Amino acid sequence: MAPQLDGYFQQVDSMSDAFIERLRQAVAIPSVSSEAARRPDVVRMGEFLANELTKLGASVELRPLGKQHGTDLDLPPVVLARYGNDKNKRTILVYGHYDVQPAEKSDGWDTEPFELTVKEDGRMLGRGSTDDKGPVLGWLNAIEAHKAAGIDFPVNLLMCFEGMEEYGSDGLDDLINEEGKKYFADADAVCISDNYWLGTEKPCLTYGLRGCNYYSIEVSGPGADLHSGVFGGTAQEPMTDLVRVMGSLVDTDGKILIPGIMEQVAPVTADEEGLYDNIAFTMETLHDSLGSKTTIFEDKKPTLMARWRYPSLSLHGIEGAFSAPGAKTVIPAKVIGKFSIRTVPNMEIEQTNEVVCRYVEDVFKKLGSKNTLKVYPQHCGKWWVASPKHWNFSAAAKATERVWGVEPDFTREGGSIPVTLTFEQATGKNVLLLPMGSSNDGAHSINEKLDKRNYIEGIKLLGAYLHYVAEEPMN
Amino acid sequence: MAPQLDGYFQQVDSMSDAFIERLRQAVAIPSVSSEAARRPDVVRMGEFLANELTKLGASVELRPLGKQHGTDLDLPPVVLARYGNDKNKRTILVYGHYDVQPAEKSDGWDTEPFELTVKEDGRMLGRGSTDDKGPVLGWLNAIEAHKAAGIDFPVNLLMCFEGMEEYGSDGLDDLINEEGKKYFADADAVCISDNYWLGTEKPCLTYGLRGCNYYSIEVSGPGADLHSGVFGGTAQEPMTDLVRVMGSLVDTDGKILIPGIMEQVAPVTADEEGLYDNIAFTMETLHDSLGSKTTIFEDKKPTLMARWRYPSLSLHGIEGAFSAPGAKTVIPAKVIGKFSIRTVPNMEIEQTNEVVCRYVEDVFKKLGSKNTLKVYPQHCGKWWVASPKHWNFSAAAKATERVWGVEPDFTREGGSIPVTLTFEQATGKNVLLLPMGSSNDGAHSINEKLDKRNYIEGIKLLGAYLHYVAEEPMN
Repeated sequence: MAPQLDGYFQQVDSMSDAFIERLRQAVAIPSVSSEAARRPDVVRMGEFLANELTKLGASVELRPLGKQHGTDLDLPPVVLARYGNDKNKRTILVYGHYDVQPAEKSDGWDTEPFELTVKEDGRMLGRGSTDDKGPVLGWLNAIEAHKAAGIDFPVNLLMCFEGMEEYGSDGLDDLINEEGKKYFADADAVCISDNYWLGTEKPCLTYGLRGCNYYSIEVSGPGADLHSGVFGGTAQEPMTDLVRVMGSLVDTDGKILIPGIMEQVAPVTADEEGLYDNIAFTMETLHDSLGSKTTIFEDKKPTLMARWRYPSLSLHGIEGAFSAPGAKTVIPAKVIGKFSIRTVPNMEIEQTNEVVCRYVEDVFKKLGSKNTLKVYPQHCGKWWVASPKHWNFSAAAKATERVWGVEPDFTREGGSIPVTLTFEQATGKNVLLLPMGSSNDGAHSINEKLDKRNYIEGIKLLGAYLHYVAEEPMN
Repeated sequence: MAPQLDGYFQQVDSMSDAFIERLRQAVAIPSVSSEAARRPDVVRMGEFLANELTKLGASVELRPLGKQHGTDLDLPPVVLARYGNDKNKRTILVYGHYDVQPAEKSDGWDTEPFELTVKEDGRMLGRGSTDDKGPVLGWLNAIEAHKAAGIDFPVNLLMCFEGMEEYGSDGLDDLINEEGKKYFADADAVCISDNYWLGTEKPCLTYGLRGCNYYSIEVSGPGADLHSGVFGGTAQEPMTDLVRVMGSLVDTDGKILIPGIMEQVAPVTADEEGLYDNIAFTMETLHDSLGSKTTIFEDKKPTLMARWRYPSLSLHGIEGAFSAPGAKTVIPAKVIGKFSIRTVPNMEIEQTNEVVCRYVEDVFKKLGSKNTLKVYPQHCGKWWVASPKHWNFSAAAKATERVWGVEPDFTREGGSIPVTLTFEQATGKNVLLLPMGSSNDGAHSINEKLDKRNYIEGIKLLGAYLHYVAEEPMN
């Protein structure tokens, strides 16, 4: 039976000014996690959340995480909170972050980045509006609207809001792993609202992310950088070898030339074949995002498949060579090429590392160089794919259809949100990515915004999701 | 008839302490041309030279060169001087520079870089000792020793000492071209003492330098840098194209893969074939300089030919890509590869540029990329080869044999000293490179030194050269 939500929705509408005011207060706190000087503001933002949650009746902890890696700086606390403790209700664990990317008016913002500016067209400009203060406050607003309308809250809500997401989530993995069977023990499912619609008009639920294996290739020879006039033609140059090796990894059309990578990729199923046609995505949107028409494919389906379900290899740069403007006649003595592979099911980190390193060594060996090669992974993060047929997703789909009037797209993303996999592994529960904002919100850019419509309907969506997830039969 | 030089040589020996004291005074002036804050010291060094020359009886001008390119900073003056004006004598134009590379004790020097420190083994440590204050003072010392010994000076000496050599010789070319038929009009030959022996034991005369054509390859596609998670696999990446193009230019053994380069190289003559065997140079010396055994050739002859008489191609680096330590998952939107070709007779700058640009464009076209390519020369400097059979060289060879007791090696160098070609073209006269220091002086490094032996015998050599060049029959 569909839950009764009209009262809740009306309450959200009637409180929309107060909810925008709450977002204004949050945006006004410049909680930039990457800047040491802003650390007190990050802490203040955590305390603001804790205070709001306490006023709403949640039990709240500000959990310290110790020192920031390699510094004497205290990490901002993780806000751990519980709202409701009814054994007869499902328990949903939600995650978000209260820190933001850096922003200065002088970067090119049209408005003061730390003053929420609501435009006539509904855009609410401000750093953190969509990433991720809007969604985090969405959960608080949902609680408040239920209380105000006198509607029983449908689940027990566990909350985990961190303050270092934009700077590597220092210390968070340890906390999640430790609390998986403690603070988070009775979670039945996990919901993360920290990504975006694929486009600007159609909501989506996200059930997959690619992983990333990042590699370094070091080639060294001479004891120090050389002058190309004096030594050019007499010494084998590390840069020559490195460029030839890097040039053998991938071609212009993105085809990975390393044997043993594509062989690991899960075959496309008949089910999957039909999945892409209905997704709200056009090549025009992609051209707009790229700022060019230099796409590998001309059509939507192979483009989405390339982004979501196939690996890709990107060459990022070279350390140790001449990289400044102008001209320098140097023969670099040691150069380090950087590249990464976005990984997908069923690629294994170890197997991938093995075929990559072997291939690079083989190509180098064929050069017949006296220089020295080292190739190694810098860091590896696994892909994540959840079952979109799980009741957590079907509940979210029903809530989306109820609020937005359309079936959501089921999407995957090309990038990584490592915490997703951590929550899945630590709790053993299904994780859902339920975005509030849209693709043109400019999360890390100037003029970051959240549309008023996405904020207010998003609050309805998060609340509706909790009602549906409370009732959804297990599958 | 061989000139009588014993009196001059004895005079130099007896004045050696005073000559070292003059070098000490010069080294004590930190005339670092690349540092704006040191500009007054550079000017002071020019004035020191002008003052010493005036005391010796030369007529001296401190010629202003205007402002340093793109700044409000006055360039240090060029010291123009004439010693002797006898129509019955030959006139020799000499060039040197009185500015030095930067140096700080904290760079790793064993001694204070701007205090000349004379070691028991004869090393005289100090910035500028060998590059190029020792050789410049060599000319002054030769004048002084002649005066002190009452020996008639054998030639009219024109001197051109600049103060910006270590920072691009800003403004000098214009002055040389302008004065070619004016201040330098009666020069019969040119002598530059600003390079080094090929090794540490045997003197040499240098008659050739390679040129350098420096190129940029720009590949651009997207409007801005992209996130490799979001766009990897969907966009053609400029870095992939650039690395493949750069990888097609040269192989590990230094073979230039661009058609139309080697075809321009002058064939090896029978005369030349025999030239290399006697040169005092060993692979061990090269291994020491490289700090490794990663040479292309195992033997001396092909190594010397590769350095002196064949072109070479070096890849210097990439601008616009990720070049810092660590990991960044960026797809760079625009990358600029830098490489240069060291040029030799009979390569033409224009023809070389044409075949290079055409080849790069062809390789790129074969990639089938939608990205945009631009390839262009950044700057081009021509090679220089003088006739070592000219009387200027035979005089220098006789002087060398008289002072050092051995026939000098006739050498070429792999690098460029652009002023050499400028003097040749502006005066139309033969130019000789007559080094004072040895290969391990560490000109641009920490612990730069000039051996006392090379300084004192070098003063004898410069004076002896002037005597021989005064008498040498024209050829």
